[in-house]
Amino acid sequence: MVRSLKPVRLLEIAAELGREVEGDPGLLICGVAALEQAGPSDIAFVRSAEHSHRVADTRAGALILLPDVDPGSCSAIRSPNPALDFARVVERLAPCLRPPAGLHSSAELAEDAEVDASAVLSACVVIGAGSRVGPRSVLHPNVTVYPNVEIGSDCVIHSGVVLREDTVLGDRVVLQPGVIIGGDGFGYLADEQGLPRRMPHIGRVVIEDDVEIGANTTVDRATFDETRIRRAAKIDNLVQIAHNCDIGEGAIVVAQSGLSGSTWVGSGAIIMAQAGSAGHLRVGERAFVGARAGLHKDVAPGSRVWGAPQLEARRWHKAMAALARLPDALRRLRAVERELGLRRARGAASTETAARTNDGARADRT
Amino acid sequence: MVRSLKPVRLLEIAAELGREVEGDPGLLICGVAALEQAGPSDIAFVRSAEHSHRVADTRAGALILLPDVDPGSCSAIRSPNPALDFARVVERLAPCLRPPAGLHSSAELAEDAEVDASAVLSACVVIGAGSRVGPRSVLHPNVTVYPNVEIGSDCVIHSGVVLREDTVLGDRVVLQPGVIIGGDGFGYLADEQGLPRRMPHIGRVVIEDDVEIGANTTVDRATFDETRIRRAAKIDNLVQIAHNCDIGEGAIVVAQSGLSGSTWVGSGAIIMAQAGSAGHLRVGERAFVGARAGLHKDVAPGSRVWGAPQLEARRWHKAMAALARLPDALRRLRAVERELGLRRARGAASTETAARTNDGARADRT
Amino acid sequence: MVRSLKPVRLLEIAAELGREVEGDPGLLICGVAALEQAGPSDIAFVRSAEHSHRVADTRAGALILLPDVDPGSCSAIRSPNPALDFARVVERLAPCLRPPAGLHSSAELAEDAEVDASAVLSACVVIGAGSRVGPRSVLHPNVTVYPNVEIGSDCVIHSGVVLREDTVLGDRVVLQPGVIIGGDGFGYLADEQGLPRRMPHIGRVVIEDDVEIGANTTVDRATFDETRIRRAAKIDNLVQIAHNCDIGEGAIVVAQSGLSGSTWVGSGAIIMAQAGSAGHLRVGERAFVGARAGLHKDVAPGSRVWGAPQLEARRWHKAMAALARLPDALRRLRAVERELGLRRARGAASTETAARTNDGARADRT
Repeated sequence: MVRSLKPVRLLEIAAELGREVEGDPGLLICGVAALEQAGPSDIAFVRSAEHSHRVADTRAGALILLPDVDPGSCSAIRSPNPALDFARVVERLAPCLRPPAGLHSSAELAEDAEVDASAVLSACVVIGAGSRVGPRSVLHPNVTVYPNVEIGSDCVIHSGVVLREDTVLGDRVVLQPGVIIGGDGFGYLADEQGLPRRMPHIGRVVIEDDVEIGANTTVDRATFDETRIRRAAKIDNLVQIAHNCDIGEGAIVVAQSGLSGSTWVGSGAIIMAQAGSAGHLRVGERAFVGARAGLHKDVAPGSRVWGAPQLEARRWHKAMAALARLPDALRRLRAVERELGLRRARGAASTETAARTNDGARADRT
Repeated sequence: MVRSLKPVRLLEIAAELGREVEGDPGLLICGVAALEQAGPSDIAFVRSAEHSHRVADTRAGALILLPDVDPGSCSAIRSPNPALDFARVVERLAPCLRPPAGLHSSAELAEDAEVDASAVLSACVVIGAGSRVGPRSVLHPNVTVYPNVEIGSDCVIHSGVVLREDTVLGDRVVLQPGVIIGGDGFGYLADEQGLPRRMPHIGRVVIEDDVEIGANTTVDRATFDETRIRRAAKIDNLVQIAHNCDIGEGAIVVAQSGLSGSTWVGSGAIIMAQAGSAGHLRVGERAFVGARAGLHKDVAPGSRVWGAPQLEARRWHKAMAALARLPDALRRLRAVERELGLRRARGAASTETAARTNDGARADRT
Repeated sequence: MVRSLKPVRLLEIAAELGREVEGDPGLLICGVAALEQAGPSDIAFVRSAEHSHRVADTRAGALILLPDVDPGSCSAIRSPNPALDFARVVERLAPCLRPPAGLHSSAELAEDAEVDASAVLSACVVIGAGSRVGPRSVLHPNVTVYPNVEIGSDCVIHSGVVLREDTVLGDRVVLQPGVIIGGDGFGYLADEQGLPRRMPHIGRVVIEDDVEIGANTTVDRATFDETRIRRAAKIDNLVQIAHNCDIGEGAIVVAQSGLSGSTWVGSGAIIMAQAGSAGHLRVGERAFVGARAGLHKDVAPGSRVWGAPQLEARRWHKAMAALARLPDALRRLRAVERELGLRRARGAASTETAARTNDGARADRT
């Protein structure tokens, strides 16, 4: 698809990026697109030298590309990081869709809510008592803000988001549709009858500047203190972040992962999809947690782990390769035992071993 | 439970199905139900010959059943596929609940939105600029439709659904409550400071005819092009479908599975619950991916895989059976080594081995 | 954080709990907090003797603590279970935030809906035809209630919750934001063209008294009968509960777990995070299912299982410890074979074994 821009000269785009133009600086650019989809008045980019062969077929008017990549017949802006510069062009010149400015007539504000005049409150948005919305923040339709919530400036809150009481959002926070912030943490005590009884969660959630959170992700409030997601951390869809977690600066948590209560994640750490952590453990700075890992103990800073229970990456890869060969190895072990007279001949395996095999043999019902 | 119908003669039900009646064609049928719950004016079905013993206890007035199953004292409609014919009866004679027709006074339409006069827009539905809703489509309360969305005919969009800008739905699409379509894909670039910066996602999502999607599932928009769910594919609850995925005709994706970016799923493939795929891989036509599998490479058409990392089904079952016997096998290996003098006697295991054991011994904290 | 109370004498708090005061019974208590955050007019608690050293640093005015823990200079209420008594204080004296009483002008009620005069219906709440809301139940903004739903007394229904038709909630049910109850179950039949066709789900969901359900969790309606969550069961965030499940009294299901159709969970059972069950199986009373377990067969009452496919806890721990040592064991097995002349010398491993290794070696792409 092509995203339209307000028409702008290529020269102005280059100036915006602090770069220079090769070719026609006066070219009027009307849209941004991928190489394959761009037309003569659109700008596209070439990610790296490996993609240079794709230039031959593009119809784009202008390209952002590395210094050593041939732009063919296109005008060019040279960049050391074409993807990053392209992202900037899109962000600055094709700002994302905004609902009509101002306060929609069906939005419901509590009397003492404070909403900046430049903020956008769409249809059926509800703002609770004592809550504040900062300059230029956009709340799409059907967002619910409970009382005593603070929303900074330039935030984008998509439809269906719910911010429970006492939540704090910094500036430029982006919440995709359906995100739930501040639900009660999952903590129960056994009462005298042995039934579970909720431990009150009187803490809150703090989301710092430039954090982005994916659709239908849930972040629970702390028991007493704070659940905190630090500056520029990026959380994907359907992630569970439990009470009292602390997610570090620029950390990345990929879809459907779940962090149990009081998990600490260091800055720059990456947690891949569908991973999980037991509670009260630390994932060190810049650590890498592989997809589907199940953490049961701390992860050292900068280390790479996989598996459940986790192993250091290389050990896990070897263990998985070995696992595929295990049935063969058990046959070889039996042959060795027969050779040594430790086992009777083929067909006379012990009853105990046969019984144990049954467990696994039914695994296909899972 | 019994679902009520507008009373109809058994003969008319049979005609609707293109079948014939055994027994009383004039029997007035007022509801559909399971065998155990049906009463004398209800119709039920017997799935297969294995369930024929359940006929003795039913109070149902009429049954849909295979040619060779004894209907007892009930009137009968014979069918080669009783469950499928029963589903048709329910669908045609007991249509699902519809909110009151027309446009609710609290629905908010952008001025240039186009809504067919036969469509139903319930309370607190919001329709953005340039969006279109086709004939007979039903939007339940609190649905949000962003600008430039196309909704075909006869769709059912349940409460809490959010359709982001540029989304396209075909005809007869059913979205359970809380589905999010078109959230931004999860793609980041490292900026000059090493912090993650969002790659703009200017693509869209296309959902073809007869697709059904389960509650709180999320489908992300493409980076530049399309995320596409093809005709009659069925997606369960809490599934994650990332940017640029392409899900084939009639494919099935069961609850809590997650498909990473640019996963291609062939027609008729089945992905069982809680499975996951790494990005940029292909699941072939009619392939079967077992529950909790973690795909790291392509799956051949028609093949069956399990496990994470995946193995062909039979190899995985054998590996899992062997894994349960592994501790015993390690004991036997030590005995062999002692027998050969490759190892000192019992109790003198090497320190290295003992140390390694510690890793696993703490696994119960996960 | 400190949660404020309407000021109350320590004596009255003790009376509420049926306990006695040591120290100043007239002390005016204005808030509840954790030990570290409490000030001179707040009450905190000391969970157990292990936490007694934390008393020295607290600024709290009063403490709830075990009989044998030194309260330092604080006034004290002695309790056999300080956390439980603290929870009661918070619940009774700091009731959770309630939206303004009554029926908000933007709430939409069907004409024949019955809402108790003491219930709270917030902005943009929609109540369908024939539905009932009991005394003192609170519906936060943007909740959707379909027709024929029953909500008991003292329920708290948070924003974004959707209750599909025919759902029944008992008393004191708490639904966190985004919970979806009663979505259609995921059951399909192959039609004559081999395409999946929805099996109608005409059953309902029943949620008994004192059940609490976490944010964005989904509970599907039964095919014909009921999906039931029994008294005081507690379900965490992003859990999937499929059609016809039956969750026992006081059972606990932790975040992101998924129960396939017709799973039966006994009373007091605990299912840890990210676990899953195949359909039609039983998890016995007071059983414990470890995090990330994948159940493929019944779990005996009171037993503990881990893993996928599941093993009894001790066997699973041993298997996982052994798995980490497997690559080493395979090396030792080869050495044994060489010793016995069953294998050629180092470096001449069979081609077959080498080929098999490739599978696992690519696992890092997951």
